[in-house]
Amino acid sequence: MHMDKPQIGVIGMAVMGKNLALNIESRGYTVAIFNRTAAKTEQVMQDHADKKLVPSYTLEDFVNSLEKPRRILLMVKAGAPTDAFIEKLVPLLDQGDVLIDGGNTYFEDTIRRNKALDNSGINFIGMGVSGGELGALQGPSLMPGGQKDAYDLVAPILEQISAKAEDGKPCVTYIGPNGAGHYVKMVHNGIEYGDMELISESYNLLRNVLGLSVEEISDIFQEWKQGELSSYLIDITADILTRKDDLGSDKPIVDMILDRAGNKGTGKWSSQSALELGVPQSLITESVYARYISTFKDERVQASQVLAGPDFQLSDADKKDLVEKIRQALYFSKIMSYAQGFEQLRVASANYEWNLQFGQLAEIWREGCIIRAQFLQKITDAFDKDNELQNLLLDDYFKDIAAKYQAAVRDVAALSIKAGVASPAFAAAITYYDQYRSAVLPANMIQAQRDYFGAHTYERTDREGMYHYPWYEEQ
Amino acid sequence: MHMDKPQIGVIGMAVMGKNLALNIESRGYTVAIFNRTAAKTEQVMQDHADKKLVPSYTLEDFVNSLEKPRRILLMVKAGAPTDAFIEKLVPLLDQGDVLIDGGNTYFEDTIRRNKALDNSGINFIGMGVSGGELGALQGPSLMPGGQKDAYDLVAPILEQISAKAEDGKPCVTYIGPNGAGHYVKMVHNGIEYGDMELISESYNLLRNVLGLSVEEISDIFQEWKQGELSSYLIDITADILTRKDDLGSDKPIVDMILDRAGNKGTGKWSSQSALELGVPQSLITESVYARYISTFKDERVQASQVLAGPDFQLSDADKKDLVEKIRQALYFSKIMSYAQGFEQLRVASANYEWNLQFGQLAEIWREGCIIRAQFLQKITDAFDKDNELQNLLLDDYFKDIAAKYQAAVRDVAALSIKAGVASPAFAAAITYYDQYRSAVLPANMIQAQRDYFGAHTYERTDREGMYHYPWYEEQ
Repeated sequence: MHMDKPQIGVIGMAVMGKNLALNIESRGYTVAIFNRTAAKTEQVMQDHADKKLVPSYTLEDFVNSLEKPRRILLMVKAGAPTDAFIEKLVPLLDQGDVLIDGGNTYFEDTIRRNKALDNSGINFIGMGVSGGELGALQGPSLMPGGQKDAYDLVAPILEQISAKAEDGKPCVTYIGPNGAGHYVKMVHNGIEYGDMELISESYNLLRNVLGLSVEEISDIFQEWKQGELSSYLIDITADILTRKDDLGSDKPIVDMILDRAGNKGTGKWSSQSALELGVPQSLITESVYARYISTFKDERVQASQVLAGPDFQLSDADKKDLVEKIRQALYFSKIMSYAQGFEQLRVASANYEWNLQFGQLAEIWREGCIIRAQFLQKITDAFDKDNELQNLLLDDYFKDIAAKYQAAVRDVAALSIKAGVASPAFAAAITYYDQYRSAVLPANMIQAQRDYFGAHTYERTDREGMYHYPWYEEQ
Repeated sequence: MHMDKPQIGVIGMAVMGKNLALNIESRGYTVAIFNRTAAKTEQVMQDHADKKLVPSYTLEDFVNSLEKPRRILLMVKAGAPTDAFIEKLVPLLDQGDVLIDGGNTYFEDTIRRNKALDNSGINFIGMGVSGGELGALQGPSLMPGGQKDAYDLVAPILEQISAKAEDGKPCVTYIGPNGAGHYVKMVHNGIEYGDMELISESYNLLRNVLGLSVEEISDIFQEWKQGELSSYLIDITADILTRKDDLGSDKPIVDMILDRAGNKGTGKWSSQSALELGVPQSLITESVYARYISTFKDERVQASQVLAGPDFQLSDADKKDLVEKIRQALYFSKIMSYAQGFEQLRVASANYEWNLQFGQLAEIWREGCIIRAQFLQKITDAFDKDNELQNLLLDDYFKDIAAKYQAAVRDVAALSIKAGVASPAFAAAITYYDQYRSAVLPANMIQAQRDYFGAHTYERTDREGMYHYPWYEEQ
């Protein structure tokens, strides 16, 4: 087999790195591969002997094998291992080479590394990769941030390996400077937490308030995925609900899965960043907290035996159209979640000077990634009309859906509270909507209190400036 | 006037430092004072010529004037100014001296400084001070963390200057090692955000759902402060609502205050830390987000003109007992907020190895600080029975109140959603309660999804271990 000098190299032969290497190779490239331990590299070569993969067993050989300017994709564990590889690579690289970190990296680390490497003339791209193992192999959604001219050097490869949307567009675009790509990926994941929480709350209401069977609920999700909720996560939910336990019981697999949810930290980071930037982000945060409280399993079991719940009977009035109301509540709440997510991205873009193109972000999420969904096109349309749009809710499509569905989400959230079946994300969605559409909020009381006990001063409704009220003087 | 060698020195003559110095002096001590700029020190000496204050105009003179082991209270701006002073002080101090940082410091800075100074044999106490300017002068609540034997060297002074509870106990105690004091102060402030948000939501419902006047609402708070809600913040709210504008209009001052709430970051830190530690903390976080969304004033005004609200009419059934229901909702939600706050403290104590005495924390908050309230005694009682109590809701007093008031908070939160008048903290309170008392949550669906798209594995209800379902194999 004739092989060109490798046009790109991949470091890290765990499943994500290996699958991306195979994906790139499948587009006609020769790919250099390296792994910290030789055994993994040997295994890859053995399993894929017919592929144009060039193994190296020292970093020096690996780097020297590459076409210049070198393109290197780093797929190792985020954090210290990434720093360790960068430190070893830098002396081996030349000015103008491009190093891409495709790991699940915290965006501030990417900002720091981009700056440090830029001082040595080495381009550094921090790239979010979404779509899981299968996506990496067949076509992920890619969110690269770093130097624009470095992006141009790798764009042809990234466009080829990425997922393609229905209109043929690749699910990758230049996101922005330094940490922009990893930041956008982080918010993508936060939104994913929100989508998953909203689905689980819908499932919970159908199961524990309406009393439907797993089979009936699967049928409902099957129907929902045909409509405006159409998305990967609704799709797999419908599928999950059809699956039987594979370990012997006769039950649906969901009933055998313990209700203790894990997390890898990106939802937490999204919320921490929103808190840092001064942006309300209640949907993602309630979703993260819902996972946290799920881990307090023993406490919950104990509490369930002593804490009183409501006297609740589902009335015919409650029941009427409830499935359709839950569907509307789900779509409404999803819109609130994306409205908050894109508001966070807008504030982050201004704060970090990233000049994010919001419509393009929604566009490259249409395929490949976990939150892929039909409705992302609506977000692209909204920002195509106005990239300075302050909040999705101010766009006609979203405003109109909100107006149509708000009654349903009020019914569902209120019912959930009355029934004692918690739906924290639905509640957060409707309260956010009502706060956002309030010309006047009771924050005047908070400012009065702050000025009273801490002399923090307040602004007035009738004139400019900061004022302090003489609370302690004789009246 | 005969003056002893100063038993303590205070650095920083802004209002908090000056008032603490005067407070200490008033207990019979001679106090050395220093300020970066001499003018402020001169002003203090001029205003308080009859006090046993010893001014210095160089740090060397200041340090040399003090009785040994030296006790120095640093009251400067948190962050870089604190580090700058510490750096200048260290070469002037001797082993065994005690440096106290009484600033509004982030607890991780305190951990770092305590460790660094300990290496030089210098004791470092990070102390939370609550009560505002007046508290500093007359008796604050103090939360000192650091070396225990260093605390013992300053305990007599701190006990004298602190507020005293009804039973005569001083509102200060040894909190724990290194950053414990500043951490506890941070959560105190986070809880304060929650208390303020709950009061503002109650006010909002009384005003904008029940349609009461400011005067009527003031009377209601006057009544509430006589009962189990009795607290400083309810007290000042009742007072605030009686005050007329001091700048000419005929209106209540609350109606002249702009609804844009500021913050100094401690609520944000509390939420970020809860996220870091894996503790649900929705009350504080929703309170922080409510302040954030209040700052989006222009967007809100714009949104109020285009986003649809509900068709809502307050029915007689809604109206019935609504004031009392709001009172119950407020107390119930306050309990949820403290339950979350103390759960956060419990997890932090284990994580940072602080061995916090939770009952004592509630005890020293009974007077002096902003969240001072009658009901803190109930928290002390609960932890006195069992310092290992996992959550306040598992204590009889709180469990019983929750059982009695849960119906009311459900009515109020649901009504708020139906009326389109947002009460995010009330909603968070009841959803937290319902999550916490759920033996089974729908987190099984989230784990199924995570295993489906990311092979993250799941735990089972019927056996130990981690499992992966063969989602992609032929069924």
